[in-house]
Amino acid sequence: MSDTPLSDTTETGRKLSETLNPGMEAALEARYGDLLPGMAEGVVDFAYGRQYARPGLPLRDRLLATIAALTALGGQTAPQLKINIAGGRKAGLSREEIAEVIWQMALYGGFPSAISGLNAALEVFAAEDAEDEETDR
Amino acid sequence: MSDTPLSDTTETGRKLSETLNPGMEAALEARYGDLLPGMAEGVVDFAYGRQYARPGLPLRDRLLATIAALTALGGQTAPQLKINIAGGRKAGLSREEIAEVIWQMALYGGFPSAISGLNAALEVFAAEDAEDEETDR
Amino acid sequence: MSDTPLSDTTETGRKLSETLNPGMEAALEARYGDLLPGMAEGVVDFAYGRQYARPGLPLRDRLLATIAALTALGGQTAPQLKINIAGGRKAGLSREEIAEVIWQMALYGGFPSAISGLNAALEVFAAEDAEDEETDR
Amino acid sequence: MSDTPLSDTTETGRKLSETLNPGMEAALEARYGDLLPGMAEGVVDFAYGRQYARPGLPLRDRLLATIAALTALGGQTAPQLKINIAGGRKAGLSREEIAEVIWQMALYGGFPSAISGLNAALEVFAAEDAEDEETDR
Amino acid sequence: MSDTPLSDTTETGRKLSETLNPGMEAALEARYGDLLPGMAEGVVDFAYGRQYARPGLPLRDRLLATIAALTALGGQTAPQLKINIAGGRKAGLSREEIAEVIWQMALYGGFPSAISGLNAALEVFAAEDAEDEETDR
Amino acid sequence: MSDTPLSDTTETGRKLSETLNPGMEAALEARYGDLLPGMAEGVVDFAYGRQYARPGLPLRDRLLATIAALTALGGQTAPQLKINIAGGRKAGLSREEIAEVIWQMALYGGFPSAISGLNAALEVFAAEDAEDEETDR
Repeated sequence: MSDTPLSDTTETGRKLSETLNPGMEAALEARYGDLLPGMAEGVVDFAYGRQYARPGLPLRDRLLATIAALTALGGQTAPQLKINIAGGRKAGLSREEIAEVIWQMALYGGFPSAISGLNAALEVFAAEDAEDEETDR
Repeated sequence: MSDTPLSDTTETGRKLSETLNPGMEAALEARYGDLLPGMAEGVVDFAYGRQYARPGLPLRDRLLATIAALTALGGQTAPQLKINIAGGRKAGLSREEIAEVIWQMALYGGFPSAISGLNAALEVFAAEDAEDEETDR
Repeated sequence: MSDTPLSDTTETGRKLSETLNPGMEAALEARYGDLLPGMAEGVVDFAYGRQYARPGLPLRDRLLATIAALTALGGQTAPQLKINIAGGRKAGLSREEIAEVIWQMALYGGFPSAISGLNAALEVFAAEDAEDEETDR
Repeated sequence: MSDTPLSDTTETGRKLSETLNPGMEAALEARYGDLLPGMAEGVVDFAYGRQYARPGLPLRDRLLATIAALTALGGQTAPQLKINIAGGRKAGLSREEIAEVIWQMALYGGFPSAISGLNAALEVFAAEDAEDEETDR
Repeated sequence: MSDTPLSDTTETGRKLSETLNPGMEAALEARYGDLLPGMAEGVVDFAYGRQYARPGLPLRDRLLATIAALTALGGQTAPQLKINIAGGRKAGLSREEIAEVIWQMALYGGFPSAISGLNAALEVFAAEDAEDEETDR
Repeated sequence: MSDTPLSDTTETGRKLSETLNPGMEAALEARYGDLLPGMAEGVVDFAYGRQYARPGLPLRDRLLATIAALTALGGQTAPQLKINIAGGRKAGLSREEIAEVIWQMALYGGFPSAISGLNAALEVFAAEDAEDEETDR
């Protein structure tokens, strides 16, 4: 139903995933590739090439939406939330914007989820500060 | 800890809630006020005055985040999702942006949640079209 | 590990289930018994005989807790929430107490869950009123 | 990272989706294609071509797993659960096996989720019976 | 819609929060106040002043309900569950009552959630014992 | 409604639980028995004797279903997921089958849940390897 050659979605996804989370595909392949051949490529093709890379909504907005959703789903998504907060920073979100969207989620995912989300954000921001200090030396 | 007189949050919330969802406070009071005196005011003060009206993130972005979260939480939030999709349209979100953010949630809330979210959006958009046609007559 | 003969839990559960939800075991057996022989008895033995009938917490408190949990889990549990609101009324909970516990859940399950819970309660209370009117005639 | 030409996953997915849910891709395209170009193909490629069609686990087991998961996630997934119960029947699951897997979920998703799941199964089985009767005439 | 001056809810909330969780508002302000000015006051006003302090349901029952809900929502709420178990002890709940309400949640949130809840309770009770021993010296 | 003497379910459950998770009943009794007398027996009777031991679905399939459900419910069930992955290995599931069922859950519980599930599986498989090496010495 599409005239676009399919390999485009994998190539597009690979470029985007390397920008947002450098080394992610190789890490997935190294960790899960023996058990699940093709899984890493599937993530790159679908999540990055067919979802995040879609036109119609800027990347900054997609990361805002992801941070909102992962917060609302509760503290068990903390590892992925931290990755997406870091990705959101690269896509142009300010710390204040990230904190605001997380805190607003108190209304939808409950207060415990929102507090867990803020704690994840503070960890990411502290890691940024530590990196900046290192660079400054 | 704040120097701002507290009544400001209720007043601010009331204005915002009347803009986004006209008549909501009165409807809450009429429906739940006998059982829960003060509940409607609490919603207005907290959800609208202390959360949605916060500076630091534009209203359009807050509604984008809410649409993402309610989609990820699954089809059981359809009534509130529809209200927030309608509110998002008033706050400047295009249909395309709304569809994109909902569909992206397939990655976080699962495909059934994303499909339920799209169905909610189609209902809201159809209601908009019906209203436009009526106005055109 | 228990000296109590096991059949006690089924007998105890049956009495309690008939008090709280008359006809429930027979209804489960009629609806699901062909596909799942013994399922109805398992519900009676475990849910009523081994959980609700435990000493250490009065039945009224157990129903309060159940109403809280089902509200927090979201609107998809509305059928069971309504059964437990009706059961809670029989176990001595006032309408006000039920409304209060549901509304408090806005903090943990989010506002949409709490509003869905209140709607379930209003339905149960309206059915009570309709029954009372019928009795009065 | 894969030597297989990518278009294979879309072709494979299309065949499988037409077997399990005939007309699904066209229905998705018709309903959501204007808002989300390429979405239907993405579902076919990823969900069917890259996930359901993977070797390593027979289709019958994949549908068993899906029925378990959708039940545990609660009654809000009923539309998708019914589709997968029907798909599971085509993939060789008996009614008894489906009922057993759903009822076991009482342990993980709670009793309300398991009861909702059984109700979905009864609907699918009744539709099968109605179809059989029609065929018999 | 209320004749009560609004500042009352903040004052009431502050008193209640200091009784149940001494130092919480200051801790929230210290940890999140730079990113989210006014957030700590919002929690105090809404969660404590407008929800927990409502008449119509005793505090002991509110904490019972909260323990039930956080257990049913699963192990990811453990930090908040522990705070509310400790708060419930101050509001008059016995260890037995707390264990009973948590274990009953096996029916609604599933067995894994109930076991996680019991583990949280055992941690709180062990901390109580350690404190008592220290006091006894 | 059943002619089977009830004690059968406890006996059956005990045998099955000792096969799948040796020492579990005693561990539950030791850890929770003081607070919740009879709880360990209730788990054995209901979860093992009345659910897992039911005819109509082989144990291997029941563990497959449980692994699917716990994955979809998210990373907060990791402790129970690991127990059931180990149990599934004993009931005849291969590592590949377990990895496949977990990864398929990306479609229903979202990508973060599926990744958390794979991490739990890798931990169990590594523990198996460590045990095998020890045995080999």
